[in-house]
Amino acid sequence: MALSHEQFAQFEGIFYPRSVAVVGATADRRKIGYGYMYSIYSANYQGKLYPVNPRAEPVLGLPGYASLKDIPGPVDHVIVCIPASNVIALLKECGTKGVKSVQFFTAGFRELGTEEGWRLEGEVVKEARSNGLRLIGPNCIGVYSPEIRLPYGVTGFVGEVGPVAVISQSGGHADSILELGLRMGVRFNKIVSYGNGSDLDSTDYLEYLAQDPRTQYVGAYMEGVNDSRRFMQVARGLTREKPFVVWKGGLTEAGARQTNSHTGSLASPAGVWAGALRQVGALQVMSMEDLDDTLLAFQQVGRFTGTRLAVVTGMTGGGGGQSVSSADACSRAGFSLPALAPSTYAKLTEVVPPVGSILRNPLDISGVGWNLDNILGCLEAIASDPAVDMLMVHHRIYRSHSFMSHEAFRSMNSSLASFRQRIGKPLVLVSNAGVLDTDVQRLAVEEELVADGLPVFPTFERAANAVGRVSHYWRDIHGRSIEMGQTPSSPLVGEG
Amino acid sequence: MALSHEQFAQFEGIFYPRSVAVVGATADRRKIGYGYMYSIYSANYQGKLYPVNPRAEPVLGLPGYASLKDIPGPVDHVIVCIPASNVIALLKECGTKGVKSVQFFTAGFRELGTEEGWRLEGEVVKEARSNGLRLIGPNCIGVYSPEIRLPYGVTGFVGEVGPVAVISQSGGHADSILELGLRMGVRFNKIVSYGNGSDLDSTDYLEYLAQDPRTQYVGAYMEGVNDSRRFMQVARGLTREKPFVVWKGGLTEAGARQTNSHTGSLASPAGVWAGALRQVGALQVMSMEDLDDTLLAFQQVGRFTGTRLAVVTGMTGGGGGQSVSSADACSRAGFSLPALAPSTYAKLTEVVPPVGSILRNPLDISGVGWNLDNILGCLEAIASDPAVDMLMVHHRIYRSHSFMSHEAFRSMNSSLASFRQRIGKPLVLVSNAGVLDTDVQRLAVEEELVADGLPVFPTFERAANAVGRVSHYWRDIHGRSIEMGQTPSSPLVGEG
Repeated sequence: MALSHEQFAQFEGIFYPRSVAVVGATADRRKIGYGYMYSIYSANYQGKLYPVNPRAEPVLGLPGYASLKDIPGPVDHVIVCIPASNVIALLKECGTKGVKSVQFFTAGFRELGTEEGWRLEGEVVKEARSNGLRLIGPNCIGVYSPEIRLPYGVTGFVGEVGPVAVISQSGGHADSILELGLRMGVRFNKIVSYGNGSDLDSTDYLEYLAQDPRTQYVGAYMEGVNDSRRFMQVARGLTREKPFVVWKGGLTEAGARQTNSHTGSLASPAGVWAGALRQVGALQVMSMEDLDDTLLAFQQVGRFTGTRLAVVTGMTGGGGGQSVSSADACSRAGFSLPALAPSTYAKLTEVVPPVGSILRNPLDISGVGWNLDNILGCLEAIASDPAVDMLMVHHRIYRSHSFMSHEAFRSMNSSLASFRQRIGKPLVLVSNAGVLDTDVQRLAVEEELVADGLPVFPTFERAANAVGRVSHYWRDIHGRSIEMGQTPSSPLVGEG
Repeated sequence: MALSHEQFAQFEGIFYPRSVAVVGATADRRKIGYGYMYSIYSANYQGKLYPVNPRAEPVLGLPGYASLKDIPGPVDHVIVCIPASNVIALLKECGTKGVKSVQFFTAGFRELGTEEGWRLEGEVVKEARSNGLRLIGPNCIGVYSPEIRLPYGVTGFVGEVGPVAVISQSGGHADSILELGLRMGVRFNKIVSYGNGSDLDSTDYLEYLAQDPRTQYVGAYMEGVNDSRRFMQVARGLTREKPFVVWKGGLTEAGARQTNSHTGSLASPAGVWAGALRQVGALQVMSMEDLDDTLLAFQQVGRFTGTRLAVVTGMTGGGGGQSVSSADACSRAGFSLPALAPSTYAKLTEVVPPVGSILRNPLDISGVGWNLDNILGCLEAIASDPAVDMLMVHHRIYRSHSFMSHEAFRSMNSSLASFRQRIGKPLVLVSNAGVLDTDVQRLAVEEELVADGLPVFPTFERAANAVGRVSHYWRDIHGRSIEMGQTPSSPLVGEG
């Protein structure tokens, strides 16, 4: 099942190219051939960047080349932004130049649903392979590789690097998964949108990611697979190594009709997908938010198998209603909210007055007021309780911003971050949106919390569901595979 | 069932007081007695505002009074921020002064779960009634009445006035419902958080709102009712007049335990509530986001009974994945995505190139590029199709902001607003969050869209679910009550 050294090196070439040429590069800002150039240039890509266009026009001050063969140094990776009709000649040129991978923004293949589209796509794959090239796409946005500062599509930036990799059959969704994920604190080491997946399909990328030492968690947006038997085999191998979270698009009849037009994927009934994913030990999610939330939860809470939450509301005031609805949200996500030890309540009553507070889990500590030491004292007492596996805290940033300076927030944030280090149990924050006026400040505070490694979810429902999925994964899905005698081969899942 | 003229006037007194006294007002910024003063003062409340405290200290430059009787003019409404032990004497004073309603921020009653708490609460109600007063709370934040610029709690502002009223047993939730609602464009005319509801319960407020001519849609966060038979009777009367959307907190076992500590509400099984709400023709929702989303949808799309959506993605680029997942989201919410007429496709092909677009509903019009006239041309053609009841459009503000100036957005926003007027079918926008850097701009654009009367939801799931509930309400819930021979008495629901 493992990739050969040579196969592995091919994928390393795709994700870590030392030089990139954009074919169809232009100074016309409305064109995608400018968008890629500007984006890679702005992100300070660590390799060499070459614009290629018929008149050898320079782009962004970089010298232009009329063809690949005119480029003085080697070219690892080519981004293709020219019409489908011209690509065969280009592939031959890539072969001559010794290019390793070719990424096709270019569309106009099988997703058109025409015989000509299918024929041309087949020809492109054949031509690429006969020239020793691997093909990303066609009809895709391509590779994001922040370690070498290669940005995604036209975004022009790279984010923090970490343990998460994502594959996506949709370029737009990969974009949104990346941007939503980054703002929530998901640290990606690579993302690829592979469109029609005509040479390298989801299965191929998954095979690589199973072996990629930088990747601990794999997320996917998928519309279909070319070879379902092989997909299941590879996915089963992957989940023995690392968690695999899948958002399958087109599970409804109307959605399935679309996948065919979008990436030429054929539909299977929703139940078949759910069964297959369960069988291979993957975790199925149903929306983009679910996908990013779950990846964030995996990254933040590690091998969490707990089922007992302590929820704290009313930090900086007014938590009664939240103590009720957080209990509903956490229960629905499968968590229990255990009674705390008498000694814990004794510690709490020292700082929390009885009126206006609720000293029962979920705790409303409104009465404690604005004293940070007292708040941290409460959190410490609760987190130390042996009945508690994890702390989930409502942080009403949008409201407390009218009472606290940004300096006070900074101090609170770093206190929370060091508290998190100290307690050795996961801490998850919930911060909901407020009015637009104060939301700019809320975003800034959340950004700092995220940078400090504290996960922030917008609702208790999303927080509890995300963490609940992680706990479910390690207890039930991974637990089951152990029972079935499929001994995991990685220390990541072999422990405990 | 209808309130007497006198009863109705009592409620008008609560929501439209001409003068307010804050008892326990102080210049100490950390105290709630300052918070209320500052908030009402900052919002430019249209009536007279009096601080009351033992040493007659002025607050915010307003002269202080040692007691209510020292205040020169009449006092309609009193906000109580003093400990529970002192309130009986205050209520006698209120009676003497001719106060009409008293709002108790003060807690320390039955929610403590002690015999003394129940006893004191009973005494307070008795004392209030014997002095001709209506009591809001205790243990609540109270009234929001933007028509007279009376803000909610300590928020210090009022929002746009409109057809929505909300009652909430939780002060914190009322706050969040208000702030989330305002940013989404919900226009409230009044909100009340009523805490323990010991004199006036949810049922009483609902009875008033059924008759309140300013209110067309009623939302509620409820934990329990004092008299369930009367609640059902009143709720049935209310839903004959206007839609009633209910978020019941404490439906899980863990949540129900909390309601008892929070507002002294006793639990009923979730199924009992669901059945009761269905029986009275109310619409049940399961979270705060659901509540605000649904109220917004009611407000924006009116008596919408449609089931056929056209979804447009790829406006300003990259909509393939969204065309798939929006189809999933809309199908799951009960909508169909009908094929459009051949003449519609013919119009579209004039401006949308086939490669990179999907001319099938949900439509991905990526290929149309950045030309606003062409985009509007597409939307117009789609909206005019007789198979389409409503248009749902993915507006990728977070991304297009890197290509468009704020001026261009302003022009696009107003074009969309006038397009919405012209087509005479509902238009709903979906704008998802991007990276933090650009989100400040996204929020600004969304704020302008909302101000132009265009609803913006953060995901297709939330948009489709909200509008789906409205359509379901007018078709199924309201339709059923007509079949049952319960002739609606209001033109709002009696039409069509």
